[in-house]
Amino acid sequence: MSTSELKSNIGVYTDPQHNLWIDAAEPSVEEIQAGAQLAPGEVVVQIRSTGICGSDVHFWHAGCIGPMIVTDKHILGHESAGEIIAVHPSVKTLKPGDRVAIEPNIPCHTCQPCLTGAYNGCESVLFRSTPPVPGLLRRYITHPAVWCHKLPDSMSFEDGALLEPLSVALAAVERADLRLGQAVVVCGAGPIGLVTLLCAKAAGAEPILITDIDQGRLDFAAALVAGKPGTVRTLLVPRGRTPAELGADIVTALGGLEPDLALECTGVESSIGAAVHAVRFRGKVFVIGVGRNELAFPFMRLSTREVDLRFQYRYANTWPRAIRLVDSGVLSDVRKLVTHRFTIEQAVEAFETSANPKSGAIKVQITNL
Amino acid sequence: MSTSELKSNIGVYTDPQHNLWIDAAEPSVEEIQAGAQLAPGEVVVQIRSTGICGSDVHFWHAGCIGPMIVTDKHILGHESAGEIIAVHPSVKTLKPGDRVAIEPNIPCHTCQPCLTGAYNGCESVLFRSTPPVPGLLRRYITHPAVWCHKLPDSMSFEDGALLEPLSVALAAVERADLRLGQAVVVCGAGPIGLVTLLCAKAAGAEPILITDIDQGRLDFAAALVAGKPGTVRTLLVPRGRTPAELGADIVTALGGLEPDLALECTGVESSIGAAVHAVRFRGKVFVIGVGRNELAFPFMRLSTREVDLRFQYRYANTWPRAIRLVDSGVLSDVRKLVTHRFTIEQAVEAFETSANPKSGAIKVQITNL
Amino acid sequence: MSTSELKSNIGVYTDPQHNLWIDAAEPSVEEIQAGAQLAPGEVVVQIRSTGICGSDVHFWHAGCIGPMIVTDKHILGHESAGEIIAVHPSVKTLKPGDRVAIEPNIPCHTCQPCLTGAYNGCESVLFRSTPPVPGLLRRYITHPAVWCHKLPDSMSFEDGALLEPLSVALAAVERADLRLGQAVVVCGAGPIGLVTLLCAKAAGAEPILITDIDQGRLDFAAALVAGKPGTVRTLLVPRGRTPAELGADIVTALGGLEPDLALECTGVESSIGAAVHAVRFRGKVFVIGVGRNELAFPFMRLSTREVDLRFQYRYANTWPRAIRLVDSGVLSDVRKLVTHRFTIEQAVEAFETSANPKSGAIKVQITNL
Amino acid sequence: MSTSELKSNIGVYTDPQHNLWIDAAEPSVEEIQAGAQLAPGEVVVQIRSTGICGSDVHFWHAGCIGPMIVTDKHILGHESAGEIIAVHPSVKTLKPGDRVAIEPNIPCHTCQPCLTGAYNGCESVLFRSTPPVPGLLRRYITHPAVWCHKLPDSMSFEDGALLEPLSVALAAVERADLRLGQAVVVCGAGPIGLVTLLCAKAAGAEPILITDIDQGRLDFAAALVAGKPGTVRTLLVPRGRTPAELGADIVTALGGLEPDLALECTGVESSIGAAVHAVRFRGKVFVIGVGRNELAFPFMRLSTREVDLRFQYRYANTWPRAIRLVDSGVLSDVRKLVTHRFTIEQAVEAFETSANPKSGAIKVQITNL
Repeated sequence: MSTSELKSNIGVYTDPQHNLWIDAAEPSVEEIQAGAQLAPGEVVVQIRSTGICGSDVHFWHAGCIGPMIVTDKHILGHESAGEIIAVHPSVKTLKPGDRVAIEPNIPCHTCQPCLTGAYNGCESVLFRSTPPVPGLLRRYITHPAVWCHKLPDSMSFEDGALLEPLSVALAAVERADLRLGQAVVVCGAGPIGLVTLLCAKAAGAEPILITDIDQGRLDFAAALVAGKPGTVRTLLVPRGRTPAELGADIVTALGGLEPDLALECTGVESSIGAAVHAVRFRGKVFVIGVGRNELAFPFMRLSTREVDLRFQYRYANTWPRAIRLVDSGVLSDVRKLVTHRFTIEQAVEAFETSANPKSGAIKVQITNL
Repeated sequence: MSTSELKSNIGVYTDPQHNLWIDAAEPSVEEIQAGAQLAPGEVVVQIRSTGICGSDVHFWHAGCIGPMIVTDKHILGHESAGEIIAVHPSVKTLKPGDRVAIEPNIPCHTCQPCLTGAYNGCESVLFRSTPPVPGLLRRYITHPAVWCHKLPDSMSFEDGALLEPLSVALAAVERADLRLGQAVVVCGAGPIGLVTLLCAKAAGAEPILITDIDQGRLDFAAALVAGKPGTVRTLLVPRGRTPAELGADIVTALGGLEPDLALECTGVESSIGAAVHAVRFRGKVFVIGVGRNELAFPFMRLSTREVDLRFQYRYANTWPRAIRLVDSGVLSDVRKLVTHRFTIEQAVEAFETSANPKSGAIKVQITNL
Repeated sequence: MSTSELKSNIGVYTDPQHNLWIDAAEPSVEEIQAGAQLAPGEVVVQIRSTGICGSDVHFWHAGCIGPMIVTDKHILGHESAGEIIAVHPSVKTLKPGDRVAIEPNIPCHTCQPCLTGAYNGCESVLFRSTPPVPGLLRRYITHPAVWCHKLPDSMSFEDGALLEPLSVALAAVERADLRLGQAVVVCGAGPIGLVTLLCAKAAGAEPILITDIDQGRLDFAAALVAGKPGTVRTLLVPRGRTPAELGADIVTALGGLEPDLALECTGVESSIGAAVHAVRFRGKVFVIGVGRNELAFPFMRLSTREVDLRFQYRYANTWPRAIRLVDSGVLSDVRKLVTHRFTIEQAVEAFETSANPKSGAIKVQITNL
Repeated sequence: MSTSELKSNIGVYTDPQHNLWIDAAEPSVEEIQAGAQLAPGEVVVQIRSTGICGSDVHFWHAGCIGPMIVTDKHILGHESAGEIIAVHPSVKTLKPGDRVAIEPNIPCHTCQPCLTGAYNGCESVLFRSTPPVPGLLRRYITHPAVWCHKLPDSMSFEDGALLEPLSVALAAVERADLRLGQAVVVCGAGPIGLVTLLCAKAAGAEPILITDIDQGRLDFAAALVAGKPGTVRTLLVPRGRTPAELGADIVTALGGLEPDLALECTGVESSIGAAVHAVRFRGKVFVIGVGRNELAFPFMRLSTREVDLRFQYRYANTWPRAIRLVDSGVLSDVRKLVTHRFTIEQAVEAFETSANPKSGAIKVQITNL
């Protein structure tokens, strides 16, 4: 696409008063056409598809996630793919017309976490959509080329936008050391739980149990993996069970096998407690979900069972692998998670759908921006 | 089966003169019926299916594998499954009629390797079929109950006997840290290479390349994984290429991607060298294959690329996982490796078929003993 | 010593009514002299030195530790060394007169934890002094030879009895992956905290900070490592600080360096919380201390910093290494922890001294039994 | 120091004809004074001390190391420390007058090895003194600030220059997973072997054996660790032993203990083979030394013992830890390795001393440039 025909740049904003609206965004079409705002290594991407994350809804509704607080008008969105429309002359790896998925972080490359391969812990990272850094839910964005990953022909912009939630699950499955033939419980069947289920399945976990408090989500999970070899069971979590009882329920549902690994995707105290009670001696509870600042954990069970409790924050070095896995078909079922699509003009409706538990929405995407 | 109707115990023997014949074996039917020879924890298994391993053929043809030398008449075989026909009163986990796969090792349980979970390195292990310990290729065998793993109804004795080669591959894939989305080359498409291919596929390796010097084996490999999602490519290894050239061929066949991991199943110098040249910086070459006592390795390549070179000797703690993976269907394709079946009376023909590269045999099993 | 001159066997008991007294114990001298009670692999040890552990005091005072409950008269003690006075004929590794340290566990050797090198998680372990298994605080004990570790001439029985608390610290430092040059905080300067400090120092941690709520213990810690190269600082923990504030205090005390690792030896909620706040991104909090069944943890800090939370339960495979380290002098300072010594007849006084925070006792041993 | 009084910039050169001489070097004093040649993030260092590495001598004498070939006049040297004399305005972490050690690599920060914390494998790294990148053996050098590590007051420029060989050993000890109480053999008592010995000692290896073919070097090693607690033994390696025999010699010298780890610092075939034969089942041979392109390894021993063979190439993320360890005194004995000091005008004599085995030189430094 030539930059001569661009529509004006607009984005989706929220603010501390929990408003949600569309407004003009940076960079302007004039800036893009002039090309002067690009620093060495940067490109301009025309966003073509952006998923709505639970954190976007949370920033809108609650105004914060832990210490990250919306203090001003703020563009949401960090799950995006699009097309390169301009590049700084120093950029040799991308050219206008290239289709890319955006990794929404800009780390410093020189602090200790960056130099040791943990750039998700960068001490001065800019993360698109985490206040005060504005997000990707707009028509055009300036971004470093190194964080724009080229998409193969087999992958749509929608697929590209799904690489962000997929990256969360891939990072978790990698750091959780999931291995072929391990018994695994995935706690929670929301978007991240479902992507994690797909990753656990693709990594050869056997058997797998997925839990949730909503039977509809468990049915969605079962349908998602129907026809694949191996075992996926579901467990509807009732209210009022203690973590110890739920832990025992999990083991029973796995045919008496204590899981090697729990991939905890809810961040809810009772669910984490159940996972701790369920896993085997020296088993692992890997927590992807986030939640309250402080939670009560079953300490003596952790101790007498030598349970490892580990945590995931965003991701590092996942996009190339994620692209390979979707492109090849190993994880192409991730596409089934997109249940609703809206235009950017319908952004408010899109967010309302995403936020409404009765909508049946798993992943809502905003496309055709 | 009642022990009152047992056929006489016979086994398949070789000797230092490279003979191969059938002869009477221990324990005798009278001993079994008397029950007196069972020590605490032991059971008698009626073998129902036994696979022939390359090492069996090697003991027959060459009389030794490295320091393990056939010095007397010697029963072969260590890939077996069968039915429990007697148990010592102390055994509570098994009873006559139970169908089991035999893990062919008897470690001491108290040396340092045993106490640290590496019982394959037990300082005084008895390994069935490694001289001077007689093997499993006979009608009845006395074995510790702890090394007899119960088979689920879904699995045949043939399946049970396949768990031994499967265990080699599972141990390798586990210790090689194979992870979802890693680019992997499997060197060699013999029985172990093919089982390793199935394991790598089930563990989510992407892409996978398998190499061999025989196009027929590569075709067998391709057929084995046909229809599964993801990428498996084959590379016919020509004669006369240097390890560096072969390493480059591997990278080219993977579309320019340096593999994270090579699973080397040939034990051949040039193949190991090629693997070392192929893998990425800090990649891994995991050697399952065995061969000559001394081999030349590309030392400076190993050094300047920080390539990890690791090795596998038998297995530890794999049967429960292997059973789960075959029973559930994740690795049920391992069944396709059995190309030929013989009775124990046809043992010589069975070994000749297994030894003959023109027979097209992958895995030969002796059944209905 | 000839078994013809043995004093009668007595032991130190507690009961659910919190009594503490001396009474006759098994095996009797007559049984020992007859030799008939020894099973294959067993020996009789004349205990010569036994340390009192905080858990012994806790069983006496509180009647339980978590799910382990004193329900009957119960012998205490699990930190012992002594002399072999009888062996079963099957035992070839030990003979009467040998001086040994006792590893107080008797695992089954065949369950999954045992077979995978984690015998501290044995599903049917007998652990001396954990109800209902009677402890080692008596004159004679029958024990498997494999769990009696020969002492070199350089080591006294007191040294031998110290190998048990040392094993706890060694297991922790091993599983915590402590490496040369890591910044480490040791939380708590009780007996386990002090042994852990010695191990961290010997493993090259730099710098080290040790915290406690008692200045006397910190002074003891400082004296313990005085004269060794490298940095050990102390931090007196005041009441009323939040975990976040204490975490910041720890970093300040380390000169602004966020520790790579916290070795948490208190099991107290605020101390664990402080450790979580102190460590760097992807740092580790390794919890050795035990405490209440449930504790509140700073969940979002764990999550956004990818802090690993790991736990230690007893030990596995530590005695040979512990002996080597004390014998060679690397950890010989562990001897300085023994502040008080009593005879078995003075057992009540010994326990009262151990239980009294004003006694200044670090490690109380009962010797010359 | 003010840049107004600088001596002219000179450096020490070699060429394909194996000459060694001093000549004018970049940047010129005029360029430094003008300040115009500094890119963002760069500083100018006045080198004050530079060690001569075996590789420097090898480039001079042999003209190459593996694929790295001297094809033109070439400045040597990569072990340096000095003083900042100019900074680009963008540099906030350093200022003129700061004393720094130079990490001699300039990686790209954005390739896969860089992003995963393995910048020593950077696909486009510039490494000072590896042809065609000129080295540090000159009066002034322009270098990125991020690779200039500030020295504490306790450390001299000589100490700072020693951080480079220390980094090699630290990287090795880190990646080799050396742990407290492991039995370790260090093969080779040259400069890298001796630094590795100090690191192994500081990390709590027990016992340690160091081998060499030169008794003088072994005596130097013994003196280096004299007075430290724990065991260091030496083994003079005679000519004409097979690797298997040498492996047995190593075990004997360790009192019958098979080492957990060999730190191989010679790169010589027979020494690596001996290490492979010596280590325990699942032991590790970690190769730091470099040598011929191809070496013969005892393949079946590696295989049947599951020996891990790992390799080190330069280092990543070691300087901050190295500074901490020398500053605190844990590794201050590294200073004892400097046996000879020369001025830059005496560079030829310095190199001849370093190259002469009869000189007794361990580490030769060029100071007062």
